[in-house]
Amino acid sequence: MKFKSLGISLMLFLITGCSFPVEKEKDSENRPTSLFNFVVIFADDLGYGDLGVYGHPTIRTPHLDQMAQEGQKWTQFYVGASVCTPSRAALLTGRLAVRSGMTSKKNRVLFPDSHHGLPQTEITLAEQLKAAGYVSGIIGKWHLGHKKEYLPTQHGFDSYFGIPYSNDMDNVSSLAQQDYSSFWTSEARKKTESFNVPLMRNEKIIERPTDQFHLTQRYTEEALSFIEKNKNQPFFLYLAHSMPHVPLFASESFEGKSKRGIYGDVVEELDHSVGQILNSLKDQGLEKNTIVVFTSDNGPWLVMNTEGGSAGLLRSGKGSTWEGGMREPTLFWSPGNITPGVVSELGTTMDLFTTFSALANVPLPKDRILDGVDLSPVLFHKEESPRKTVFYYRGDELYALRLGDFKAHFKTQDPYSNFYQTHRPPLLFNLNVDPSEQFDVANEYPEVLKAILEVRQEHGKNMVKGPDQLQKRG
Amino acid sequence: MKFKSLGISLMLFLITGCSFPVEKEKDSENRPTSLFNFVVIFADDLGYGDLGVYGHPTIRTPHLDQMAQEGQKWTQFYVGASVCTPSRAALLTGRLAVRSGMTSKKNRVLFPDSHHGLPQTEITLAEQLKAAGYVSGIIGKWHLGHKKEYLPTQHGFDSYFGIPYSNDMDNVSSLAQQDYSSFWTSEARKKTESFNVPLMRNEKIIERPTDQFHLTQRYTEEALSFIEKNKNQPFFLYLAHSMPHVPLFASESFEGKSKRGIYGDVVEELDHSVGQILNSLKDQGLEKNTIVVFTSDNGPWLVMNTEGGSAGLLRSGKGSTWEGGMREPTLFWSPGNITPGVVSELGTTMDLFTTFSALANVPLPKDRILDGVDLSPVLFHKEESPRKTVFYYRGDELYALRLGDFKAHFKTQDPYSNFYQTHRPPLLFNLNVDPSEQFDVANEYPEVLKAILEVRQEHGKNMVKGPDQLQKRG
Repeated sequence: MKFKSLGISLMLFLITGCSFPVEKEKDSENRPTSLFNFVVIFADDLGYGDLGVYGHPTIRTPHLDQMAQEGQKWTQFYVGASVCTPSRAALLTGRLAVRSGMTSKKNRVLFPDSHHGLPQTEITLAEQLKAAGYVSGIIGKWHLGHKKEYLPTQHGFDSYFGIPYSNDMDNVSSLAQQDYSSFWTSEARKKTESFNVPLMRNEKIIERPTDQFHLTQRYTEEALSFIEKNKNQPFFLYLAHSMPHVPLFASESFEGKSKRGIYGDVVEELDHSVGQILNSLKDQGLEKNTIVVFTSDNGPWLVMNTEGGSAGLLRSGKGSTWEGGMREPTLFWSPGNITPGVVSELGTTMDLFTTFSALANVPLPKDRILDGVDLSPVLFHKEESPRKTVFYYRGDELYALRLGDFKAHFKTQDPYSNFYQTHRPPLLFNLNVDPSEQFDVANEYPEVLKAILEVRQEHGKNMVKGPDQLQKRG
Repeated sequence: MKFKSLGISLMLFLITGCSFPVEKEKDSENRPTSLFNFVVIFADDLGYGDLGVYGHPTIRTPHLDQMAQEGQKWTQFYVGASVCTPSRAALLTGRLAVRSGMTSKKNRVLFPDSHHGLPQTEITLAEQLKAAGYVSGIIGKWHLGHKKEYLPTQHGFDSYFGIPYSNDMDNVSSLAQQDYSSFWTSEARKKTESFNVPLMRNEKIIERPTDQFHLTQRYTEEALSFIEKNKNQPFFLYLAHSMPHVPLFASESFEGKSKRGIYGDVVEELDHSVGQILNSLKDQGLEKNTIVVFTSDNGPWLVMNTEGGSAGLLRSGKGSTWEGGMREPTLFWSPGNITPGVVSELGTTMDLFTTFSALANVPLPKDRILDGVDLSPVLFHKEESPRKTVFYYRGDELYALRLGDFKAHFKTQDPYSNFYQTHRPPLLFNLNVDPSEQFDVANEYPEVLKAILEVRQEHGKNMVKGPDQLQKRG
């Protein structure tokens, strides 16, 4: 009985036999006459359960809570990968990172000693929107290649202010000799000098090590300037905060202020930043033709104990293909345009490329496979999402697949362990009924499992994996 | 650094040397000139994570979410015990159940073959408010004694409509022979006839077995009538829903409608019920002098798998002294009186007795120890809660104690297991920083542990345990 509606959706999906992602007719109602501006606020390692409006008991996020009230709170929104580099590649290209080669089995992200980055053949959202005259800026963490030819300014962004990789990278040499985990329990982790991270403007390093205590604040100020400066033309602002990725640093006004400890301080400063940006948009009368999206790159870094976040009721966290690794708290905001409410339809960060392209009337590239769908029907009319699938990759391997309400795990592995388990038959969970992935129902739904395996096969047929850019040398 | 503020609160608490619970001067501002009406809506086995506003991804609770918006959403609100009977005794008497004897080590709740119930010597909230001329009604589950002398009408309630114990009790004899757990996976659990539960009006059985499909609906209709009938005098309505305690039953309009399965259907019907009640209060202009509280008797019944709820990010559930067993989603609502917002101060259901007594100007009984505090400063001014402690009893034994931000576990035990672990030294968790009780900090905070042990000793000194009413025969 309780699976009836799910069964029907699934059947419809199979009967229509459509390939996926499904691209719907573009929706043209309820749009402002001018083009939308796009602001994507991307947190780093924020967990599904870390905002007030997603149930955290002691982290106070009044601005994000209000953004959720005024906009849409998505409860089943995913990222393209459970770690940083491939997740960001997916967001900006609208494609699974396995296609661009921005993922790797061994080292799963780029490191300061990596040689390469996002290939020039990839089209970023910034490049895509240029066709419609957008000015694009990135403020924050890039992590798609720190050598000159891979920097944001080489990938369609008109300006860049931020750090090129994670804020814990490039430990000073004295620390490199220490045991990694003992470092994270030492006092050294609290010093900004322990991380020799460069701060860049466009293609120049302007500070090193970066003063991480004021990163959130400085990013915010830059964002406010960018909006002010570009308010008379369509713009795309990608504000990729460095926080709450460890090491955690908050400015004087926030440090020691939250009940949740330093992790809470940092999230509360992000919340304040979001409030400043939304207020600035309102003050300048831009809120009616700007879409703001808030989400994060992957789940909480649980091994960091209380300095890592919480996935709430979801299982596991960053690095994992369990829900906690890839489902993120996600808000869409555009007063008067986006229909307010809670949305439990499926969406992913890759859909932003497709959706924004549609809204900017820029045709999608025809020479490559995109993994996004146009979410406009959901955003503007709270209709059903055209997305019916989610692919959970670890490195270049498909570990799990969601089809409608159900998710099958072909393989599971702890976030930072080399041990994995292959599941034959796959584990099967009904995520709407069992979001914590506790009750395997593979035996009860053989037809669902069969359908998922068909989707996997179809997906595999069309998959051309890009050469691994993360391990590549020379 | 991050524990600084906690340390200060704790020190202040110890320096002032006050006993607890602390009773503050009564607050008299912001009150309507007439007496407040009180409506307590009490769910059964609802988990901390089961409402939209507490982070559930697929259960839709728009009315409760709106109630939270218009009122206060408490994130650290507790019940008096992790199972039904002692939790309800605590709510209605304002005292830990161990004082009234309404808890027991062996059978932890009353059963249909129990002989006794809440002693006549106890003063219920209904009796207490009678002194100020309140009319009191209970609609729903009582579970404090089903023999005539223990019924609600013998305990200060002017009217009663509901079931005398849990909706899974009194299985028909053919089922009693079955294995308990196999019953819960059988189709029989979905039949209302499988449970020979009586429905009572005042002291008479009016239906048996109760039609459980329409319990929520009928309770709601009764509640609306009660409000309509008593709107011209101060009233106390205790609406103790039978749902979402298994067996789960929803009416035709809700069954099969939620994405979360039958558990979601049932919670969504409760949400609808809350909406009807709040709207009715508004329609009759009663919202400005009525305080509505929504909470539940204990955490989710996890052993029921997908038919049990979710404690969200909290550990364990019903039957346990981990947070998931005793911290509940709790909303206070009174537009124009209660200051809206999120509250992470401490409160318990026992505080309702003290708070409502203060608001009704009824002096507290002097001949007994009460365990409540007056929450008025928090409700009306969002000030600090006078409550600094929470006592977590299992049966008549104190398993854990919260003081300020910290909770010590002296003993832990799985909800339905006979195995327990005694902890020497106790486990210690900072609940504000680590709400999931994962990181024991006993070694880091010996002074906190010492303070908690002092509080325990003081508490023990004043503890007179009432004779066990649950096992008592004859």
